[in-house]
Amino acid sequence: MSSAFRVDFRDRSTRARLGRLETPHGRVETPVFMPVGTQGTVKGLAPRELEEIGISMLLANTYHLMLRPGAEVVRSAGGLHRFMGWEHPILTDSGGFQVFSLAELRRVTDEGVAFRSHLDGSPQLLTPERSMEVQWALGSDVAVVLDELVGFGADRQQVERAVERTASWARRSKAAWEKLGGRGAGGRLLFGIVQGGVYPDLRRRSLELTLPIAPDGLAIGGLSVGEPKAAMYEVLADLEPQLPEELPRYVMGVGSPDVLVEAVALGYDMFDCVLPTRLARHGAIWTSEGRVIIRDAPFATDLRPLDEQCDCYACRYFSRAYVRHLFKAGEMLGMRLASVHNLRFLTRLMESIRQAVREGRLRELREAIRQKYGTQTKEGET
Amino acid sequence: MSSAFRVDFRDRSTRARLGRLETPHGRVETPVFMPVGTQGTVKGLAPRELEEIGISMLLANTYHLMLRPGAEVVRSAGGLHRFMGWEHPILTDSGGFQVFSLAELRRVTDEGVAFRSHLDGSPQLLTPERSMEVQWALGSDVAVVLDELVGFGADRQQVERAVERTASWARRSKAAWEKLGGRGAGGRLLFGIVQGGVYPDLRRRSLELTLPIAPDGLAIGGLSVGEPKAAMYEVLADLEPQLPEELPRYVMGVGSPDVLVEAVALGYDMFDCVLPTRLARHGAIWTSEGRVIIRDAPFATDLRPLDEQCDCYACRYFSRAYVRHLFKAGEMLGMRLASVHNLRFLTRLMESIRQAVREGRLRELREAIRQKYGTQTKEGET
Repeated sequence: MSSAFRVDFRDRSTRARLGRLETPHGRVETPVFMPVGTQGTVKGLAPRELEEIGISMLLANTYHLMLRPGAEVVRSAGGLHRFMGWEHPILTDSGGFQVFSLAELRRVTDEGVAFRSHLDGSPQLLTPERSMEVQWALGSDVAVVLDELVGFGADRQQVERAVERTASWARRSKAAWEKLGGRGAGGRLLFGIVQGGVYPDLRRRSLELTLPIAPDGLAIGGLSVGEPKAAMYEVLADLEPQLPEELPRYVMGVGSPDVLVEAVALGYDMFDCVLPTRLARHGAIWTSEGRVIIRDAPFATDLRPLDEQCDCYACRYFSRAYVRHLFKAGEMLGMRLASVHNLRFLTRLMESIRQAVREGRLRELREAIRQKYGTQTKEGET
Repeated sequence: MSSAFRVDFRDRSTRARLGRLETPHGRVETPVFMPVGTQGTVKGLAPRELEEIGISMLLANTYHLMLRPGAEVVRSAGGLHRFMGWEHPILTDSGGFQVFSLAELRRVTDEGVAFRSHLDGSPQLLTPERSMEVQWALGSDVAVVLDELVGFGADRQQVERAVERTASWARRSKAAWEKLGGRGAGGRLLFGIVQGGVYPDLRRRSLELTLPIAPDGLAIGGLSVGEPKAAMYEVLADLEPQLPEELPRYVMGVGSPDVLVEAVALGYDMFDCVLPTRLARHGAIWTSEGRVIIRDAPFATDLRPLDEQCDCYACRYFSRAYVRHLFKAGEMLGMRLASVHNLRFLTRLMESIRQAVREGRLRELREAIRQKYGTQTKEGET
């Protein structure tokens, strides 16, 4: 199996583990949270700010980049790292999720997904082979095979069919990947993907079908799509004992503080979400005391930093009063400072989670985070 | 007169001069261009980026800040420098220009200007005294007395009346300023303002009335309000021989490359304009080859930096193709990178203007800039 990932430490009282993933653009310590650079930029932030925040790996969206500026443009610019000025690891998703959430006039066949671009209505076809070609052109460190996604609330039969199709697409993805160069060319990694909704037996079935074609890691898809957190945790807890120890496990689309610590305790290693930057752009700030809405009137004269515990650029130089003013005045810098802060908050959270695992204190930390951030029942509402 | 300003060098073949202005927040070399931090932030940029660009002084708008967040909020935050995290000099305007361009239901009397806030319709009164109080609360290094502004196209009688009223307001401004503390408290500077439209004799009359109350410098108002560049240059050329050598001369609201070099050659020292950042947000990029519109199709695959001569952050790390992509995708980072670049372009232009003055090459430089940037007949169209 994969030699790119190594587990260094296992917690005794939870299923948490510490590991490291070796990629062509460097090593990533896990558990890790990856911010999302949807269109080749983490909204509002420059690469050097992400470095300062301590981000070690980004996610970029294949769907968005294949439509604009197009895989060919990025390839001829020397790949996505060079195009966007980010020298550290990048994971690309397969494009599947956005096709199923954004694209119009979608038609799924065994061949792939035919759809119209949400940008200009142009007809497009995303097949397993096309997804691999685009991700190869982007030059990501970790690619993910194309899957069929069904939303929360889909009936068992739909989920079952999606699991089978995902497996068949995975085989084709893998074959296309090998043909493009596979691990041979510079050590790029390929993750399989496990679907199956909230049905434990379908999750297991999907895992079984996926494992043979998942040389470097496993993405867990189809979570954080509207189901209650409890259902998500159940799926993750049930699936974990079936997962091979030596593969990194990536839960797609989660980024709330309480969900992250829970998923780490359940034995998962990698996470991504637009949540920290999206909340930031709406003026919702994560602090060590819980979430605050910076537009609220009491902050008008509050000269404290966004979070007194934080060491980010925003907290070192600016007050809540100033950030509130920027939001009220509609100034871009407000969204920037809030984004810097929320990402640093989450990066520090991951640091403290890794530290707590190392010191056998993860259960205490989980309890503390739950109390401040666990009041919402669905991921993304935090 | 002012001891805060000193002329170090005079050009022989033009009226240009090199000088330095000492302020409570440090020394500024002139000629200098000041970007505009309208609402307590230069749109899109953080203070440390402005420092990296080489900005030595900012302008902030009294009108905007008195309405939001309010002078009291800024004062209780320790003043505008601390509030916005900018440790270098700040000049505040009087608020007059925005009252005359933005406010609603404006009524000018000898007392001041009554108007309704463009934000919430609340009734406001801007008097010379109020303008001074607000600027004092903001804690700017250079304050400007309140003036009455009439637009380009106003008849002679209107301009004449505005000149008289500006002079009477200036006397009241100066008295209010002295009462607040004046130069005594930390060396803050006060500039008078010369109006008079495009009428040379009214400009002279305004200067005569203003000089006695302009201890530290002279702002030239009422230009760049829609008149042809030729008319602006005529006013500046006619007025210059009347100006005392030892006062800094600040032409308000100009920022096109060709106008800056022309105004320096005519003997002026300080300038401000929203133009570089406003153009940038619309994707208009100043380069050493002239202006380019980054959204244009040919840039889709152009891997060169915005300007091959430039050393700014945007030009060091990103391509035209990437910046174009950001603009097409509506990503904030595009406006940021373009703003960084345009401001660095103008800062480097001012550096090369000062260098050219020192070396007796200003006329050649003016000619070169005219050829690339002098095709438009009005300021702001560059």
